[in-house]
Amino acid sequence: VQVRNDFLRDQKADTFHHLGLSTKMKHFNETFSDLKYVCFSGSQGRVYNMADRLLNELNISKPIGFQLANICKNTDRYVMYKVGPVLCVNHGIGISSSSVVLNEIIKVLYYSNATDVSMFRIGTSGGIGISAGTVVITSVAVDGLLRPFLEVPILGELVKIPSSLSVSQNEKLLKCGDPSDDFQIIPGKTMCSWDFYEGQARLDGARCEFNMEKKQAFLKKAYDDGVRNVEMESLTFATMCCQAGISASVICVTLLNRFETDQITVSEDCLREWAHRPMTVVIRHIRSQLCKRE
Amino acid sequence: VQVRNDFLRDQKADTFHHLGLSTKMKHFNETFSDLKYVCFSGSQGRVYNMADRLLNELNISKPIGFQLANICKNTDRYVMYKVGPVLCVNHGIGISSSSVVLNEIIKVLYYSNATDVSMFRIGTSGGIGISAGTVVITSVAVDGLLRPFLEVPILGELVKIPSSLSVSQNEKLLKCGDPSDDFQIIPGKTMCSWDFYEGQARLDGARCEFNMEKKQAFLKKAYDDGVRNVEMESLTFATMCCQAGISASVICVTLLNRFETDQITVSEDCLREWAHRPMTVVIRHIRSQLCKRE
Repeated sequence: VQVRNDFLRDQKADTFHHLGLSTKMKHFNETFSDLKYVCFSGSQGRVYNMADRLLNELNISKPIGFQLANICKNTDRYVMYKVGPVLCVNHGIGISSSSVVLNEIIKVLYYSNATDVSMFRIGTSGGIGISAGTVVITSVAVDGLLRPFLEVPILGELVKIPSSLSVSQNEKLLKCGDPSDDFQIIPGKTMCSWDFYEGQARLDGARCEFNMEKKQAFLKKAYDDGVRNVEMESLTFATMCCQAGISASVICVTLLNRFETDQITVSEDCLREWAHRPMTVVIRHIRSQLCKRE
Repeated sequence: VQVRNDFLRDQKADTFHHLGLSTKMKHFNETFSDLKYVCFSGSQGRVYNMADRLLNELNISKPIGFQLANICKNTDRYVMYKVGPVLCVNHGIGISSSSVVLNEIIKVLYYSNATDVSMFRIGTSGGIGISAGTVVITSVAVDGLLRPFLEVPILGELVKIPSSLSVSQNEKLLKCGDPSDDFQIIPGKTMCSWDFYEGQARLDGARCEFNMEKKQAFLKKAYDDGVRNVEMESLTFATMCCQAGISASVICVTLLNRFETDQITVSEDCLREWAHRPMTVVIRHIRSQLCKRE
């Protein structure tokens, strides 16, 4: 794992403020140096579910009398579980929250000399013109102006940071479907918005200064441009991982078709089941990759 | 509390997806209609601390055999506690995460007909040219280009959303110091960055394409422009609350002086004590306002 920062070479110790970790912690290298996969999800509960499934589905033995421990227990910002070569971490909501955790995880992997690491964002999203429940593998992450880069202020000037996701890893993920699945896995562009309401052309936010016609026209424009879903973190993954030389993929289930509705009204049970779909795809992929390594 | 959205008038029921709440929940109106203050903090633990302090320091009696309950227990995205007329909520990290929760809280207050509501963001920040431990009351929130508005893509076009914080509320907060305090309360502009690392001119991120001289020059420019601290949510509060007709203030303690260092190296105990300072200021203010109301 590379860092694009010469200053870190001279850094004797580093504190990862939002993870509640430091290079000086006990077993720092042993904890992180053998990692090959990092799976991110937005919410803490979903991260625990992912870790728990990995433990069972990768046949990793849990020492008798022990349970998964949150490695970030010194903070309540993020949670982190290690399951063999896989790290599971939550990223919160949005570009900023995911940028903070990605900066710190990339530094952790750099300091601990981890190699050949792949990253996955396993999330939920709004679909555009596709059935709710479909799993979308992001081909290109675009911003709210449908541009494939992140434009942000650095030292008082706007800077464009290029983005890219792993084409070969995406191809493998697209083949992880099973004939018995009751959902589809499709490729598509993903729009990464700054906000869940106005930023995603929703009519039901606390502020809305457009109408139904303009909303539909924008969603149609995005659809025609190849966008199949909307969420709030894909661009951080596509820029940060690309800059650090990490193969990254974004795999999200869609919870609704935005041409039809703005509100997420599926039942709790259905939501829970759908949230497992992108996890299932990634676990199948990791399992097949681990078999090849052996 | 106003909403700038005519569509909500025709909305028969509304689901607040990220809060795990709905207008159809039991006791919706009774829970929210008497609220006068909403206190936000980034982390869940700090929100609980705030609620616990309010319970004691506003002399609100806890029914025997009961404890504070998280109103958002159906989700793990946010937590929420109600202490009499005060709601305490976490907003996570960044503009996007805080925009989601502010949209939903403003809608909740609108539907439950709450009136005269004030909002406070009680947080931590990096100081510019002031002693670590100082409490800064934000006069104006500016973006990474030092502009006092939020510029974001809506329906594929960049839109500038004006921002403002409550001048009169800020004046009252500035007078909430006590001669026995071992910290200062000062006014100042606050820069709201999209990221904790490059976005705040830090040299210790996973990516850094500038040097020490350029970093110091930018911080000096911000200081000369009146900026005294940097965080990641003030602009959301200044825009969303201004649009909803809510008096809002941002009160943050500074954890370091960014002219001197990038890393937060104060001890855990010190961090914990400092994080209480902006809470202390807001609790004194709420207490004096409640006395006036009685």
